[in-house]
Amino acid sequence: MQEEILVRKGPEALLHSPTEGVTAFREAICRHMVPRGIRSSPEEVLVTSGSQQGLDLVARTLLSPGDVVVVEEPSYFGALEVFRSARVRLLGVPTDADGMRTDVLEALLARQQPRLIYTLPTFQNPSGCVLSLPRRRHLLELAWRHQVPILEDDPYSDLRYEGEALPSLKALDPYGHVIHLSSFSKVLFPGLRLGWIAAPRPLVRQLALVKQTVDLHSGTLGQWIVEGFLSGGLFAKHLGATRAAYRRRRDVLLAALEEEAPAGFTWNRPEGGFYVWCRLPEDVPPARLLAQAAAERVAYLPGGASFVEEPPVNSIRLNFTFAPEEQLREGVRRLGRALRATQAEPRRGNHTVVGTPPIV
Amino acid sequence: MQEEILVRKGPEALLHSPTEGVTAFREAICRHMVPRGIRSSPEEVLVTSGSQQGLDLVARTLLSPGDVVVVEEPSYFGALEVFRSARVRLLGVPTDADGMRTDVLEALLARQQPRLIYTLPTFQNPSGCVLSLPRRRHLLELAWRHQVPILEDDPYSDLRYEGEALPSLKALDPYGHVIHLSSFSKVLFPGLRLGWIAAPRPLVRQLALVKQTVDLHSGTLGQWIVEGFLSGGLFAKHLGATRAAYRRRRDVLLAALEEEAPAGFTWNRPEGGFYVWCRLPEDVPPARLLAQAAAERVAYLPGGASFVEEPPVNSIRLNFTFAPEEQLREGVRRLGRALRATQAEPRRGNHTVVGTPPIV
Repeated sequence: MQEEILVRKGPEALLHSPTEGVTAFREAICRHMVPRGIRSSPEEVLVTSGSQQGLDLVARTLLSPGDVVVVEEPSYFGALEVFRSARVRLLGVPTDADGMRTDVLEALLARQQPRLIYTLPTFQNPSGCVLSLPRRRHLLELAWRHQVPILEDDPYSDLRYEGEALPSLKALDPYGHVIHLSSFSKVLFPGLRLGWIAAPRPLVRQLALVKQTVDLHSGTLGQWIVEGFLSGGLFAKHLGATRAAYRRRRDVLLAALEEEAPAGFTWNRPEGGFYVWCRLPEDVPPARLLAQAAAERVAYLPGGASFVEEPPVNSIRLNFTFAPEEQLREGVRRLGRALRATQAEPRRGNHTVVGTPPIV
Repeated sequence: MQEEILVRKGPEALLHSPTEGVTAFREAICRHMVPRGIRSSPEEVLVTSGSQQGLDLVARTLLSPGDVVVVEEPSYFGALEVFRSARVRLLGVPTDADGMRTDVLEALLARQQPRLIYTLPTFQNPSGCVLSLPRRRHLLELAWRHQVPILEDDPYSDLRYEGEALPSLKALDPYGHVIHLSSFSKVLFPGLRLGWIAAPRPLVRQLALVKQTVDLHSGTLGQWIVEGFLSGGLFAKHLGATRAAYRRRRDVLLAALEEEAPAGFTWNRPEGGFYVWCRLPEDVPPARLLAQAAAERVAYLPGGASFVEEPPVNSIRLNFTFAPEEQLREGVRRLGRALRATQAEPRRGNHTVVGTPPIV
C-alpha cells in the first residue's frame, strides 16, 4: 500500500503539502461525510493532526481567557484539558440516556452568553449515549437563537452496531453554526494522527492560519495513505469488519458484567462507539476501588476526570474495543473481584480511632 | 522501505505511540546529535511534529503574555509569528556577518530581564550567517549570568558545504540553559513533519504534557521511517548526496548573481544552509521590486517579514536549495530584469502632481 503510494505519487507523498490538507484527501473526506448527511466542499474542510489538534485549534481561534464554554457532563476529559489550558470558564450541563439535557441548557442560556457549546452527540465519550433527534433539533434552535457556535465532536458515529443512524448536528444546520470535528483514528491507523474539521469557509481559513504557526501541515504520507483507503473502497471494507468485531466485544463485555457485577453496580448498553458507562454502588468509594483494581491489574477510566467539578454520582468508563474477547472477560472478572474486595473493606468512617486523643 | 517497516514492526507502526516519541527514534536522534557535540539521553529528547511545533510548544510552556523575548534581527519569520501569537514583547538584537551582536545583547540585559533568548546560530534563516565561537561563548556566559534560557533553533547545521563546523550552543552549555530545537525536514521528507527538542528532563516532561493536549503524539509511521533511515546508514548517505547537490546549487546562484546583479545590489556567501541574503540598492523600493518580480514570475522572501519592526536596510532572501540549477539561473536573470525595471521606473517623489490643488 505505502509502496504503491510512493510509486503512484512519487516524492510528493513525502514533501510539504498545504496547511489545509492534501486536496484529494479533502475531497475523499467530503465523500466520507455524505452518510452523516453532511454536504461540504473541500474548501470547507481542514485536515488536522488528529481530532485532539482540532479541539486545540478551535480553542485557540475562538476562545479568550474568561470566555464561557458549555460542556455536557460527563464529557471527554481531553477536551476539558484543552479548554482549561485556554483558561475559559466551563459550565456543565447534565446528560441522561438521551444525551445533553437541552432543557437545562435553555435555562442556562437565559442567564449566560457562552462563546461555544461543546458536545459529543453520538456515542459520547465517556457515556456512550446518543443525543436524541428532538434534542438535536432543540440544541440547534437554542444555538441559532442565542448565536452560539456548536462544536460537534463526532469521532464515533461510523461505529454503530445496531439501531438507526441519526443525522449529525451539522447535517441539520443550514446556518453554519456547527463546527464538525472528526477523526479517522477510531477506525484506521490512530498512529497517523489524522482528523478533520468541517466548517464554513471563513472559519476554515482562520483555523488554517493558526494551524500554520502550530505545525505547518499534517503529515503528507499519512494523508495519501488514508486517501488511498477511502477512495479504493478498502476503508468501507475495513469499517465493516471493525464494526462486526467491536459489536462482538461489546456483547462479550456486557455478558461478563451480567455475570460478575455485584448488586448496585449498573451500566448502560451503548448502540455503538467504544465505551460502557457504569455507576458504582454507593458503598464503593472510587479511590479505594482504583487501588483494588490496580492490585488486580485491571484498568479503567475513573469517572471523575470527565466532570467539570465534583461528579454527582460515582462512575467508571469501560472500553470494549481495545482488548480481545478473552481479555475482556478476564478484565471483568478482575473488576468484579476488586469491587467485592472494596465492599468487604472496613470503612474508615465507622471505625473508632484508637490511640489518638479525641478533639474537644 | 515502508513495506519493510510494516513487515518488521507490524501494526505497531500505525498505532498510537508515546507523546514523547517512539523510544528507538529518540535513541537514534541522540546518536544523530553526537556530531553536533551533544550528549543527550532519550529521556532528554521530545519528538515534535516539525520544528514549527517545537517553537509553539516552547512558547506555550515558557511564555506568558507581556513577557520579554529577545530575537536576533533578522530572524525566522515563522518564529516571530509564534511569539506574536503568544502576545509577548519582542526585542530585536542586530546581527552582522558573525551572527548576533552579543555586545548589544549585553547592554540590553543590563536593563531588561527577558524570559527567553531565541537564536538560529548556524546558517541562520534568513541571513545564512553563523554565530562565531567567541560570540557563542559570550552569549552563553550572558545567559548564565542573567539566568535566561536560550532557545537554539538549529535545523541547518547538517548542511555545511565548506569551512569547519562549530559546536552547537547546547554542546557548550553544561548547565542546561540551552533548549536545542531541530528538524529532519531540511534534509529528509519534510512532509513527515518530524523535529525534536533536546532539553533537560524536567522541561521535556513539561513540554510533553502540553504536547499531549495539542496532538497526543507525532505520527508513528513517520518516526519508524526516519528511525530506519538513521539506523540503517541511509540518512548519512542521503545527507552526503544532498550536501553535494546543495553546494552546487549555491555556487550556481552565486555565479548567476555575479553576472546579473546591478550596482548596489550586494549579497553574502553562506558556508551552508538554504539561503543567500541580499541587500537592495538604495534606489529600489521593496514594494515596487515585489511588483516587478511578480510580473517576471520570480519569487523570493522580502526581508521585512524577518524583522520585529522596520528593517534598517532593505533586503531579500533567496533560497538556493529548492530549484534545480537551470531554474536558479533563470530565476536570477528574471530578478536582474525586475531590479533594473524598478530602477528605471520614474520615482513618484520626483513627480509634480498635476490636477490637484497645492495644499497651503
